[in-house]
Amino acid sequence: MEKVVLAFSGGLDTSVCVKLLQEKYNMEVVTACVDVGQPEDEIERPAQVANNIGVKKHYTIDAKHEFAEEFIFRAIKANAMYEGYPLSTSLARPLIAMKIVELAKKEQADAIAHGCTGKGNDQFRFETTIRSSSVCDIIAPVRDLNLTRTEEMDYAVKNDIPVPSDKLYSIDENLWGRSIEGDILEDPMVETPEEAFEWTQSTENAPDEPQKLTVTFEEGVPVAIDGEMMNALEIIQEANRIAGLHGIGRVDIIEDRIIGLKSRENYETPGAELLITAHKALEQLTLTREELKFGETVTQAYSELVYNGLWHEPLREDLDCIIDNMQLRVSGDVILKLHKGSIRILARESPYSLYSEEAVSFEDKEMDQREIAGMVKNYGLQAACYQKVCKNE
Amino acid sequence: MEKVVLAFSGGLDTSVCVKLLQEKYNMEVVTACVDVGQPEDEIERPAQVANNIGVKKHYTIDAKHEFAEEFIFRAIKANAMYEGYPLSTSLARPLIAMKIVELAKKEQADAIAHGCTGKGNDQFRFETTIRSSSVCDIIAPVRDLNLTRTEEMDYAVKNDIPVPSDKLYSIDENLWGRSIEGDILEDPMVETPEEAFEWTQSTENAPDEPQKLTVTFEEGVPVAIDGEMMNALEIIQEANRIAGLHGIGRVDIIEDRIIGLKSRENYETPGAELLITAHKALEQLTLTREELKFGETVTQAYSELVYNGLWHEPLREDLDCIIDNMQLRVSGDVILKLHKGSIRILARESPYSLYSEEAVSFEDKEMDQREIAGMVKNYGLQAACYQKVCKNE
Amino acid sequence: MEKVVLAFSGGLDTSVCVKLLQEKYNMEVVTACVDVGQPEDEIERPAQVANNIGVKKHYTIDAKHEFAEEFIFRAIKANAMYEGYPLSTSLARPLIAMKIVELAKKEQADAIAHGCTGKGNDQFRFETTIRSSSVCDIIAPVRDLNLTRTEEMDYAVKNDIPVPSDKLYSIDENLWGRSIEGDILEDPMVETPEEAFEWTQSTENAPDEPQKLTVTFEEGVPVAIDGEMMNALEIIQEANRIAGLHGIGRVDIIEDRIIGLKSRENYETPGAELLITAHKALEQLTLTREELKFGETVTQAYSELVYNGLWHEPLREDLDCIIDNMQLRVSGDVILKLHKGSIRILARESPYSLYSEEAVSFEDKEMDQREIAGMVKNYGLQAACYQKVCKNE
Amino acid sequence: MEKVVLAFSGGLDTSVCVKLLQEKYNMEVVTACVDVGQPEDEIERPAQVANNIGVKKHYTIDAKHEFAEEFIFRAIKANAMYEGYPLSTSLARPLIAMKIVELAKKEQADAIAHGCTGKGNDQFRFETTIRSSSVCDIIAPVRDLNLTRTEEMDYAVKNDIPVPSDKLYSIDENLWGRSIEGDILEDPMVETPEEAFEWTQSTENAPDEPQKLTVTFEEGVPVAIDGEMMNALEIIQEANRIAGLHGIGRVDIIEDRIIGLKSRENYETPGAELLITAHKALEQLTLTREELKFGETVTQAYSELVYNGLWHEPLREDLDCIIDNMQLRVSGDVILKLHKGSIRILARESPYSLYSEEAVSFEDKEMDQREIAGMVKNYGLQAACYQKVCKNE
Repeated sequence: MEKVVLAFSGGLDTSVCVKLLQEKYNMEVVTACVDVGQPEDEIERPAQVANNIGVKKHYTIDAKHEFAEEFIFRAIKANAMYEGYPLSTSLARPLIAMKIVELAKKEQADAIAHGCTGKGNDQFRFETTIRSSSVCDIIAPVRDLNLTRTEEMDYAVKNDIPVPSDKLYSIDENLWGRSIEGDILEDPMVETPEEAFEWTQSTENAPDEPQKLTVTFEEGVPVAIDGEMMNALEIIQEANRIAGLHGIGRVDIIEDRIIGLKSRENYETPGAELLITAHKALEQLTLTREELKFGETVTQAYSELVYNGLWHEPLREDLDCIIDNMQLRVSGDVILKLHKGSIRILARESPYSLYSEEAVSFEDKEMDQREIAGMVKNYGLQAACYQKVCKNE
Repeated sequence: MEKVVLAFSGGLDTSVCVKLLQEKYNMEVVTACVDVGQPEDEIERPAQVANNIGVKKHYTIDAKHEFAEEFIFRAIKANAMYEGYPLSTSLARPLIAMKIVELAKKEQADAIAHGCTGKGNDQFRFETTIRSSSVCDIIAPVRDLNLTRTEEMDYAVKNDIPVPSDKLYSIDENLWGRSIEGDILEDPMVETPEEAFEWTQSTENAPDEPQKLTVTFEEGVPVAIDGEMMNALEIIQEANRIAGLHGIGRVDIIEDRIIGLKSRENYETPGAELLITAHKALEQLTLTREELKFGETVTQAYSELVYNGLWHEPLREDLDCIIDNMQLRVSGDVILKLHKGSIRILARESPYSLYSEEAVSFEDKEMDQREIAGMVKNYGLQAACYQKVCKNE
Repeated sequence: MEKVVLAFSGGLDTSVCVKLLQEKYNMEVVTACVDVGQPEDEIERPAQVANNIGVKKHYTIDAKHEFAEEFIFRAIKANAMYEGYPLSTSLARPLIAMKIVELAKKEQADAIAHGCTGKGNDQFRFETTIRSSSVCDIIAPVRDLNLTRTEEMDYAVKNDIPVPSDKLYSIDENLWGRSIEGDILEDPMVETPEEAFEWTQSTENAPDEPQKLTVTFEEGVPVAIDGEMMNALEIIQEANRIAGLHGIGRVDIIEDRIIGLKSRENYETPGAELLITAHKALEQLTLTREELKFGETVTQAYSELVYNGLWHEPLREDLDCIIDNMQLRVSGDVILKLHKGSIRILARESPYSLYSEEAVSFEDKEMDQREIAGMVKNYGLQAACYQKVCKNE
Repeated sequence: MEKVVLAFSGGLDTSVCVKLLQEKYNMEVVTACVDVGQPEDEIERPAQVANNIGVKKHYTIDAKHEFAEEFIFRAIKANAMYEGYPLSTSLARPLIAMKIVELAKKEQADAIAHGCTGKGNDQFRFETTIRSSSVCDIIAPVRDLNLTRTEEMDYAVKNDIPVPSDKLYSIDENLWGRSIEGDILEDPMVETPEEAFEWTQSTENAPDEPQKLTVTFEEGVPVAIDGEMMNALEIIQEANRIAGLHGIGRVDIIEDRIIGLKSRENYETPGAELLITAHKALEQLTLTREELKFGETVTQAYSELVYNGLWHEPLREDLDCIIDNMQLRVSGDVILKLHKGSIRILARESPYSLYSEEAVSFEDKEMDQREIAGMVKNYGLQAACYQKVCKNE
């Protein structure tokens, strides 16, 4: 009997997959849940569900630190943002897939399975990663059998699969954000109800007192909040906590999916908004204008690759090389004020500041203003020439 | 005696220029103040000052509507933003210069003068415009005589020029924003004191009640707030008022000046933040992914040209052509919530929405999910090939 | 019986399609051949073949002038080039599809069919155009029945379909170029044999005498060669003739197909190479540096859209707006020398030249060189600051 | 007496500078000629001239290998090209300036001098480098005294400075190219006379026999021609020799100078044209489509920085990081044919080819063409949606 490793969340889709793989595909199923910072019960429940529906072997793989250090920290350095979305789910998919591939090797499995339907982005993100690092077959039972949600429910009932109490929205959570979609939110004119949010306070309920905060960066990544050094995992969690408390990080966008469909998406990404805002403020102080400008191009390319599931594209690694070099100097402190959903930069400093003595001395008497006159006179030469040749005749 | 037209604000720099032009350059001085939405007293005072210091002819030129329609509306359509700054001063300079050039023609003047020192951006913006549309000589007395502020003060006292009561900061205001710089703000670690702000409430003093707002756009420009149609000037003023009331639009950045100097700048641009945020939300609904992506490139190029004073570069006109065509479909309503410095998009709709029936039907039973399987399988082909050729053995 | 319009070339694929549509799909087949500048016998043969295999209605649609004016001329203005390939086939597909859609409307057909297999780019180009402008079903019999070439041959023999004498290479020809692929050429280390070429002389057989040539442009498009005014179709044909004679326009590249497969492609595009080279030379004289630079970005985006079959993307129309505005000034003469595969620019002139009196006078005594000293001193400020802050101690 | 190090070529400008520095500036002058691959007599003559006009200390600094390895090889990896010009002079200036700075340190000089006038690019390139790595004063006597050529000649005659026999054109030569400007060439409609060229044959005089050539690359740089391994210096010299013999590498462009002036420039860069053409062909085989596309953006940014004299911008180093990573796989052989000014790629291979077995197997029976049908159907979704929503109503 062939063996398959299934990425398993304990939800309806993947639970149905277990049975389908056993019954229709006649395979031995090993399940695995990769911890990338989901809430604790989403880590524990899959193990129980797997046991309940007759899975012999279930793995829980802790990838939280790797996710923080190797994925989220890269995203911060890149200011990664796709159409306003800081790429939480997109960033986790390749890591989950890599962990599943590792496990499949260890288990000498013949195939890897996932529960994605044929409608979303995640099938692309999973499969390109798997194909990039494994020769296993890939099985997507729900998609390949073209099951509707109703058909899945029927199948679950018939096969004693516990059907989760109906959630209104489709939710995905990890360390870098929480996404909310589906149901009434599919209408772009419907305002997202307050009960959809879990990570962020409404601005109404956020503290009346603003909070001032210092974030310290070293080589482009956050290392301390208000002077307290933390590791990658801790600092992201703390950033989520503080910013969420102040109602920061609710994102409501129309997003272009990989296949070109527009979808309406809600996200809660308080830590991402806080840390990327602070990071950009420090870049303004330490990078040259040329770097800031080219950096925007890098951010755009990087974000698209990640969103599109192309973590294993060599260009992603190429871009990390330029980013890493630029970020060597992005060290220092940024002071921010958080209040009722708003973030404001108050101050910043860095040992690599390009706002330097040099520049300041330029401002005073040592500079002869007349030096600049010639520059001004010869500036915009082509624009003036164009206007004269082509407009004023 | 040669005649010169001087762009005149009634401040120390330009008042000193009047006398210098009369005494040292031996010219007949005509002054002009161009109204681009400054506070009313900044329009009235120049006329009085001009009279007091012996100017025979002073003009007040109302360019507010033109500024709103031909400059700010273009900036909104372009989402123009330079390093986080919505380009208020930069946008007004070419218009002011064009009005001065027109006047110089009417007055048959021999020269045009401005009061810029040799330290900032505005000398570039003024002079490229003037050189693009006039053959007049350009005189910048303060810069050309390399006067320090102290020397200017001395000269003013000796020549009975009224010295304005000392302002702490250097301020520039027009319809699209208010800039604050100088003094203690030159240290990027000093927090900007509350008294520096005039257009925006602090988040602490902003209303405790959030405000919901509908902004209506037609072909990329705002035409109504909460259903009330307004002309360009009115809607910008109203957007400034509402957003300022809610503490929105304080910008504190390290900015790269034209000559490459980093400077710390504070801006109040409440209307710009409100209108551009709403505009982008509507673009997400109505433009294709390809357009949104290329649009970012256009925004970057456009913003740089405007910041750098190159309004008369033909590329600016070229870019307006692509922008105007894209914006034909950016019509519809955006609902936002303003509260204590924060803006949140709640909903949006448009007759040109690309989030359409088409897309919705795609989501349901009519689509066979298996159709997508082949696409997924063949996606990321090169990334997988790269990993196999270059990494896996 | 449902009616289908089939894009018909008279080759094996589309001939097989006729029978399949009649027999397996039970449809009434109308065939059409769209003339976009193929060799004459490729226009005539389809009509004969259609008749021979029992098609009742065959149309020949002359789109040569439209192809030249509305497609190729746009490509020249855009300097359109994808990885070194001037987009001949890619450019013709949307036009052919549009003509088929028009015919389907006229014929009140229920479906549109094409003979593409599932391996190439053309299925994408055809179908996005058709879906963009029609609600007809789309049928691709060879792909949808997953036929191999051998199976097609067998089917042809059984159904009295004339099997074309075996061609070594797969060829596609239109006014803008000739593509050659397949067989031994699939190995990137095999040199393309001389007999593969039909439009271009080998450099060995090209004339020993070089030819000097003047190409005249108006608003970005060629209007005369050596002073002789020609219409769009004529000038492209003449450019192909002259440049081909001199061995110009052989392109041998590794190309990235839409689905991400690399393929080795040979093209003969003599006219394209001649006209685009001349066009770029004239742009250097008439466009500003900012326009030339942004123009490269436009060229890249435009070429990708066209290659990828996205002629109907609104961004393509947006880009045409910026291109058309820039090209208003690209008028004038370019003198070139053609010899044995090489093109050299010798001279150029334009009424809109930005290489002007202005600039020349700048070179001489009127400019005080000291004016520039201050500019030079303040140039590269940030680079120097960076080196001092970050490198020198 | 203060000491100055002067970059010295032995020509009129720098010879006049020697005397001016001695007489007018009252300084002790040390001269230095940096060898970046000029013709031998241009290395020897400066030493003699320096001696003749009373310079006590003259240095000849051999930087040929460093220029080849650290500058030209980087340019090849970047495909560096500014408006059609492969950046020969631009690339050498920072190296020359760095060598002069080193010498100034060794000599404990107080100042560094150069002979640039206020009209060209080189003053920017020299001075940004010097300011980036030295605190010496910079003196540009010809510019700072605003001397015309005639005034220089007069001064030379009066001071017994040998006036070079009048050259028609202004020439600059180094290992990577030869530039020719001035005199009649300033008219863009004048064809460059044959006698202006020294490195390249005319196509008429080039050999009647074509030459086939194999260039081998390792990690993005050429290491062998026709199997013969060579060091950087040798392979560039050999590429210049062979390509020049076949009439390759004459460039005639309208170029945008740093200050925005258009100038007409002729270059001979045979080696650059040969090596960059071959390099690009190998990149097509080994880099992904995403890398090739982003690579064009990198090339544009890199070339501008180098042309603009910003070698010391940190962005240049950042870009080298991404380039170096991409180039790790650009190894293999390219076969080209050179004939009468034309280069044609014939074949290419690489151990890192992405044109792989993988791809080839994709072409045959194993792929079910129907897999692609769904992809095609869902391709261009937004374009079709746009056409329906906005065009077809």
